[in-house]
Amino acid sequence: MRDRFRELGDQAPAPPRTELGPEAYRDWTDEAMRWVAGTGVPALGFPVQMGGTGDYGAAVTGFEMLGHGDLSLTVKAGVHWGLFGGAVANLGTGRHHHLGAAIIDATLPGCFAMTETGHGSDVQSLETTATFAPDTDELVIHSPTPSARKDYIGGAARSARMAAVFAQLVVAGESEGVHCVLVPIRDEQGNPMPGVTISDCGGKGGLSGVDNGRILFDRVRVPRTNLLGRYGDIDDQGRYHSPIESRGRRFFTMLGTLVRGRISVAGSAGSATRSALEIATKYAEQRTQFQAPGSDTEITLLDYRTHQRALLPRIATAYALMFAQNDLVSRMHDVQVQTADGEVSEADQRAVETMAAGIKAYATAFANDTIQTCREACGGAGYLTANRLVTLRADTDVFATFEGDNTVLLQLVAKSLVTSLQRSFGAMDTLDVVRFGSRMVAEAVVEQTSIRGLVQRFKDVWSDRLPYTERAEQLHLFADRETHLLEGLARRLRRATAPGADAFAVANAAQDHLVEAAKAHVERNVLEAFVAGIEACQDADTRILLERVCDLYALSVLERHRAWYLEHDRLTPERSKALIGAVNDLCAELRPHARTLVEGFGIPNRWLGTEMMGVEAI
Amino acid sequence: MRDRFRELGDQAPAPPRTELGPEAYRDWTDEAMRWVAGTGVPALGFPVQMGGTGDYGAAVTGFEMLGHGDLSLTVKAGVHWGLFGGAVANLGTGRHHHLGAAIIDATLPGCFAMTETGHGSDVQSLETTATFAPDTDELVIHSPTPSARKDYIGGAARSARMAAVFAQLVVAGESEGVHCVLVPIRDEQGNPMPGVTISDCGGKGGLSGVDNGRILFDRVRVPRTNLLGRYGDIDDQGRYHSPIESRGRRFFTMLGTLVRGRISVAGSAGSATRSALEIATKYAEQRTQFQAPGSDTEITLLDYRTHQRALLPRIATAYALMFAQNDLVSRMHDVQVQTADGEVSEADQRAVETMAAGIKAYATAFANDTIQTCREACGGAGYLTANRLVTLRADTDVFATFEGDNTVLLQLVAKSLVTSLQRSFGAMDTLDVVRFGSRMVAEAVVEQTSIRGLVQRFKDVWSDRLPYTERAEQLHLFADRETHLLEGLARRLRRATAPGADAFAVANAAQDHLVEAAKAHVERNVLEAFVAGIEACQDADTRILLERVCDLYALSVLERHRAWYLEHDRLTPERSKALIGAVNDLCAELRPHARTLVEGFGIPNRWLGTEMMGVEAI
Repeated sequence: MRDRFRELGDQAPAPPRTELGPEAYRDWTDEAMRWVAGTGVPALGFPVQMGGTGDYGAAVTGFEMLGHGDLSLTVKAGVHWGLFGGAVANLGTGRHHHLGAAIIDATLPGCFAMTETGHGSDVQSLETTATFAPDTDELVIHSPTPSARKDYIGGAARSARMAAVFAQLVVAGESEGVHCVLVPIRDEQGNPMPGVTISDCGGKGGLSGVDNGRILFDRVRVPRTNLLGRYGDIDDQGRYHSPIESRGRRFFTMLGTLVRGRISVAGSAGSATRSALEIATKYAEQRTQFQAPGSDTEITLLDYRTHQRALLPRIATAYALMFAQNDLVSRMHDVQVQTADGEVSEADQRAVETMAAGIKAYATAFANDTIQTCREACGGAGYLTANRLVTLRADTDVFATFEGDNTVLLQLVAKSLVTSLQRSFGAMDTLDVVRFGSRMVAEAVVEQTSIRGLVQRFKDVWSDRLPYTERAEQLHLFADRETHLLEGLARRLRRATAPGADAFAVANAAQDHLVEAAKAHVERNVLEAFVAGIEACQDADTRILLERVCDLYALSVLERHRAWYLEHDRLTPERSKALIGAVNDLCAELRPHARTLVEGFGIPNRWLGTEMMGVEAI
Repeated sequence: MRDRFRELGDQAPAPPRTELGPEAYRDWTDEAMRWVAGTGVPALGFPVQMGGTGDYGAAVTGFEMLGHGDLSLTVKAGVHWGLFGGAVANLGTGRHHHLGAAIIDATLPGCFAMTETGHGSDVQSLETTATFAPDTDELVIHSPTPSARKDYIGGAARSARMAAVFAQLVVAGESEGVHCVLVPIRDEQGNPMPGVTISDCGGKGGLSGVDNGRILFDRVRVPRTNLLGRYGDIDDQGRYHSPIESRGRRFFTMLGTLVRGRISVAGSAGSATRSALEIATKYAEQRTQFQAPGSDTEITLLDYRTHQRALLPRIATAYALMFAQNDLVSRMHDVQVQTADGEVSEADQRAVETMAAGIKAYATAFANDTIQTCREACGGAGYLTANRLVTLRADTDVFATFEGDNTVLLQLVAKSLVTSLQRSFGAMDTLDVVRFGSRMVAEAVVEQTSIRGLVQRFKDVWSDRLPYTERAEQLHLFADRETHLLEGLARRLRRATAPGADAFAVANAAQDHLVEAAKAHVERNVLEAFVAGIEACQDADTRILLERVCDLYALSVLERHRAWYLEHDRLTPERSKALIGAVNDLCAELRPHARTLVEGFGIPNRWLGTEMMGVEAI
C-alpha cells in the first residue's frame, strides 16, 4: 500500500514550500483536496454500502503517506474523510448511506463539531443541546452558553457545508447523553445557514492551510432523521431507544468507533518525524564543522558523539514506532471489518482503542521532541522555512492536543489496563486483589510475549561485547517495569474505593504514576512489535541491521529509565553505568548505516525536497 | 532598572498580535526601533566617549524587558545596538567613536556579519578575506567561495547600511586571523553598494520581523581605517601589529568582548519563558475540566498533579535563572567597566565568559522546553496565535542556535573549567594531576560556596517532613556531582595528550560527559545565585516563599539526575524514591502561591495580553 501511495505522491500537487498567507494556503489545500478525491484513495476508508471498498487499513496508511507531503492537507483530509465521513459511516445508519458518494468525492465538505470552548477533553460534559421537537419531527440544535460554542473546528471557518455536531440529546425532557447530529452549516453559496454563526479561529501555531473555526447554534432545526442513530435513535413515534442500555457504555462505544482518527494522527506524526530525521541525517552526513586537532580535515557533524546521540536513537525509535504502527493498523483493520460484519469482540475493540490512545500520545510527543532536535541539529539552516523542519515542527505541535490531549490519553490507557484486571475478579478482598492482580499482569505480559514467540534467547549477531543485547533480557526488563508499575497502580487506585476515601484525591495523587505506567506499556508493546517485525523480515542483511537498530531502541529506553531500575534493584550501579556506554557504542556502530536507515523510510524524494543539502548560489 | 523599563513599556508601540505578513512585520519592527531609539535606553550600553552612559548592566536588562514585548524587536535591537554597536565599541578605537551618535539614534542601521554559510560555530575558519592593499591604503573585502557567503545576518536583507564584517585579515601576504572591518553595504537610498550582493534568507521558523539576509562581497574596497583595530591594527606604514602576541588568545579576547550578546539572549529567553509561564498558569488557575467523582464541581487544571508537575518546577527554575541572570549581569557590568578603565583581571573576564556561555545554553534550552510545555498545558487555546504561546515558542527556537550553538557552548564551558584546573599545575605527572585536580575542584567549589556564606545549616521554615530541604545538603549534592563529573573529565581529556593518542577520538568520546559536566556547573551556580538572592531579600514573607521555591528548583534538578546519584552511591534507592514524592509534595504546597509567583515576575500587563483568559464572544 505504501508503494502505491509513493507512486501517487509523484503526481501530487507540489506542496507549498514558499510562505503563503493563510488564505492562499487554504486555497492550495482546497485544491489539493480535490486532487486527493480524484485519486480514488478516500473510497478505501468507507464501507461498500456507502460506495467505498472497506480497506480501512489502507486508508489510514494513505493519511500516513500524505503526512510526508503537507500536514495541512493531511489534517484537512483527516477531518473531512476520517472524522466527518467516519462519523457518518460509524455512527449513522442505512438512512445516511446515500451521503457516501458526496463525502467520498468531497463535493459535500464536512467538519467534525465535537470540541467546545468550555469542554474539550471532557466530551461527556458538552453543553450544546439537540432537543427533539415532536410537533415538527425535528431536532433543535442550540448553544445555550458562550462556552457551548464549538471551537477549533477544522473546516468550519471556510469550507464545510455540513457539520457532524456532538450534542446532548434531549427527548421528551430527558437527557440521553451525547449523540451526533448532521447539521447543514452553509448553503451551496457558502453562506451560513439561518441560526448558524461562524467565525474564524484566526492565526495558529501551524497548519495554516486548515480553516479552523467556531460555530454557535441559535435554535437551528434539522429533520429528526439527521440524528446518526446507530447507538441511540428516535423512532417514528418520537421515542428514544438504544441497543446499549448503560449511558456510559453507549458513549464510549460511540467514541470507540472513531478510533481511526487517533491512529491516523499517530501515523502522520510518524511520517513527519521520519521526514525530519532524513533531512537532519543527510545534512549531518555532509556538513562539516571544526578541524580535528592537528589535521586540516573538518569533522563531519554525524561523527560527533553528541550528534550521533541526538539522531541515532531517534532513528531507532522511529523504526520501532513504524513497526508498532503497522501492527496497530492491521489490528484496527480487522476490528473494523469485524464490526461491519457485526461479529467483533469487545475485548479486541477495547485493546485496539487502548493501544491507539497510547501510541497516539507516545508518537506525537516523540514527533515534537524529535523534529525539534532535528531543527537544532541543522543550526541556522534548520530555522529556514525552505528547509521544512520548522514547518514540520509547527504543524505537528498540536498533534499533542487534538484527537485527545496526550496526558489525558495516557491516563485512559493506564486506567483501562488496571480496570480490565480488576474486572476479572470482582468480589475478592483488597489484599487478594493486589496479589491476584499482580500475578495477572505478570501472566498477561508473559502470555502476550510468548504468543508472539518472543521470550527466547536471541543470538547476538554482531558482537557480544555489548551488554543488554540479549533480546530476551531487554523484553524482560521492559515487561518487568510495566508489570511493577501497573501492580503498584492497581494497589493505589484500589484505595479510592475504601469507605470514606476521597476518590479524586487518590486518583490525582497517582496521576504521574498513571502516566509512567501507560508509557511503559506502550514501550513494551513497541519493542514487541519491532521484534515481530524483524521475525517477519525475509532479507538476511536487513535483519542483521534491524536487530542492531532494535537494540538501540531498547537500550535507549532502558537508559532513560535507569533511575527506576536502580531504585527497584533491577540493575546494579555498574550495570546501569554500562548502559550509557552501550548506547554510545551502538550509536557509533550504526553511524555508517545512518543514510541506509533514513533512506529505508522510503520517503518520496519529491516530498522531502529542501534547499539545504548544498550551498546554493544567491 | 526593571521598573524604569516597566514604565517605558506602557508607552511602547503595541506589539503586533495579529498575523502580519513578513514585510508588514518588518515595517512594524523598524518603526518600533525608532521608538526604542527615542527612549534614550540604547545610550546606556555605550561608553561615554561614544556618547553613551556606560550603564552596561542596565542596557542588558533593557533587552530582557523588551523580550516581554516582542522578540523580533528584541533581536533587531540586539543586532543593531548590541552586536553591531558592541563591535564598534569593543573592537574599535578612538577613530571609530564618532559613529556613536548615529549608532545610538539608529540613523546608521548596522548588522553583524560574522556567520558564513560554511562556518558558523567555527568562527576561526571563516573564509571571507580582508586584504590590505598598500597602494590605495584600503582593505579589500572578498568572498572567495560560495560557502564564504555571510548568512542569516539579521538586518542585512533590508535595513542595514553598515556591516561589521568578520574576515581573515591579510597584510603583506600574511594571514593575521579573524578581524572585524566596517563595510558600508547600502547607500542612503538603500541600494547595495558596488560589489555587494545581498539576498533575503526568506521565511524562518519565527522572528518574522527580523530581515535576515545573505551578503557576498566581490572585492569591495574600504579605507584601511575601517578596521576595528583595538586588538590588531595596521599602522600608517602598512604594518600589522597587535597588543596580543598569540593569535589564538587574540581571537578569543576579541570574541570575549562580545560577551554581552550571549547574556542578552539568556535574558530575553528568560522573559519569554516567564511570559509563557504567567499565561499558562493563569489559564490553569481558572480553566476547569472533568468533574471530581461524585461531585458537580469541575476540577481546576492547576489542581491536577500532572499540571502542577508541568508548571511549578518550571516556575521555580525560572526564578532560579532570574537570580543567576541578575548575578551574571552584575558581574558582566563590573568587568566591562573595568575593561574600559583598562584594569580588568583576565580571570574575572574568563569567569564571566564561561558563565555567560553556560547560562545562555541552559536558559535557552529551558525556554524552548518550558514554552512548549505551556503551549500544551493550554490545549487548543494554546495553539492560537492570539494567545502568544506559539509565537513565543517559534521566536525563541533559534535562541538555541544563535550567539553560539548550545551544544558547542556547553563543551566550551566544560573545557574551560578543565583547562583552568590543568593550567594550575603544569608539569605534574598524570596521576598527581588527577589527585590534585580533584582536590582543586572540590576546594574551588567549597571556597566559592563558603565565600557566599552558604555552606551552613539552613532552618527549614515550613515543615520538616520533606527530605532534602536542608539547603546545605542540596548544595553539597549539587557540588559533589559537578566535582565528580569534572574530575572524571580531567582524567579522560588528559589521555589525549598521551604519546600516540588520537586527540579527536579522546575528546569526541567524552562529548556527552563534557555536556553533562557543563550543565552540572551551571545548575550549581544557579542554585548558589538563588540562595544568595534569598539572603539579600529583606521581606520576611517573601523570603519564606522563596525558600520553598528554591527547594523546588533544587529538588527537581536532583530528581532529574537521580540515576547519577544512585550510580555513584550518593543516594540509596529509598532516598531516591523519596525525592519523587518530595517534588510532588512541594508542587502541592506551592500550588496556592502559583498566581503570586507568576505575578512576581512583574511583567507589564500590556505586554502580556492574550485573549485566552475569558471566553470571548464571537
